[in-house]
Amino acid sequence: MQNMTDGLIVWFTGLSSAGKTTLSNAIYEKLLLAGYRTEQLDGDIVRRHFSRGLGFSRDDRNENIRRIGFVAELLKRHGVIVLVSAISPYREARDEVRSRIGEGFIEVFVNAPLNICEGRDAKGLYKKARAALIHDVAGLDSPYEAPSRAEIECRTDTETVEQSTEKVLHYLKRRLSG
Amino acid sequence: MQNMTDGLIVWFTGLSSAGKTTLSNAIYEKLLLAGYRTEQLDGDIVRRHFSRGLGFSRDDRNENIRRIGFVAELLKRHGVIVLVSAISPYREARDEVRSRIGEGFIEVFVNAPLNICEGRDAKGLYKKARAALIHDVAGLDSPYEAPSRAEIECRTDTETVEQSTEKVLHYLKRRLSG
Repeated sequence: MQNMTDGLIVWFTGLSSAGKTTLSNAIYEKLLLAGYRTEQLDGDIVRRHFSRGLGFSRDDRNENIRRIGFVAELLKRHGVIVLVSAISPYREARDEVRSRIGEGFIEVFVNAPLNICEGRDAKGLYKKARAALIHDVAGLDSPYEAPSRAEIECRTDTETVEQSTEKVLHYLKRRLSG
Repeated sequence: MQNMTDGLIVWFTGLSSAGKTTLSNAIYEKLLLAGYRTEQLDGDIVRRHFSRGLGFSRDDRNENIRRIGFVAELLKRHGVIVLVSAISPYREARDEVRSRIGEGFIEVFVNAPLNICEGRDAKGLYKKARAALIHDVAGLDSPYEAPSRAEIECRTDTETVEQSTEKVLHYLKRRLSG
């Protein structure tokens, strides 16, 4: 398994607090245990590291996604399974990465209704946005364009983390052995 | 050798036209042939991909170096020998990457006098700078701080490409087998 020549990019997209990072963490642990080279790229962390100066406009968000895609592609080329969790609200940017990567790109729509995400509000974003302290929160006062052709959809409002994890792993196993 | 768990970062620093990319290309070929996972990161290409908006001030150049370092570190973590060629004119930025990486960071000072580099002028930078069409060219109207503790120095004005390549490979072999 370590000798496979090419990796995969598993791209978790969804609203803030939809459960992208939770799912990515669970899958990361499983893949590590199974002996795969794996890396997690978190949209917020990547932004801090190399998108200083980018804001939350459509262009800037898409530029951030392009940069994450660039790094993910480099890692994938060296056999790494890259788990990206980033809101990535615009379809055009996700599809741009998809067409650059080709077959190795797997889009996972981490889907929960806005009211559920807002109830969780892991980062306090929605609260701040409701208080008008911040703007451009995807799904609230900024668009979130749901995927139209995601390889996998996880309904985190009705599935448990274990169920969603199994669903993704099942798909990955097919792809990795195929 | 493919199973080594950790890679290396070989960081070529020097003036424009000092021969960084030439040397990186030659070493890349040799490492590939020897079966190593290898990747080249070129400062100009990386800048185009994820430093849009950064200029050539001290801060912006250092930020670009930090970003290259971030990507190189990710690749190194997965067993890749990363060959970075970037002018990287400021010691503080190179040393910041060095201290983050630790032992796996190898600085190669690609050294030729300015007049030799200007004579080569592979990218036409010096010509444009002399004509005042561009500014902030390292070594000319912007500083280049030579390394004080590079692991390897290649004098590309007096050594052949083969000699410089051998020098670096010799060092790498010791590190990779040690």
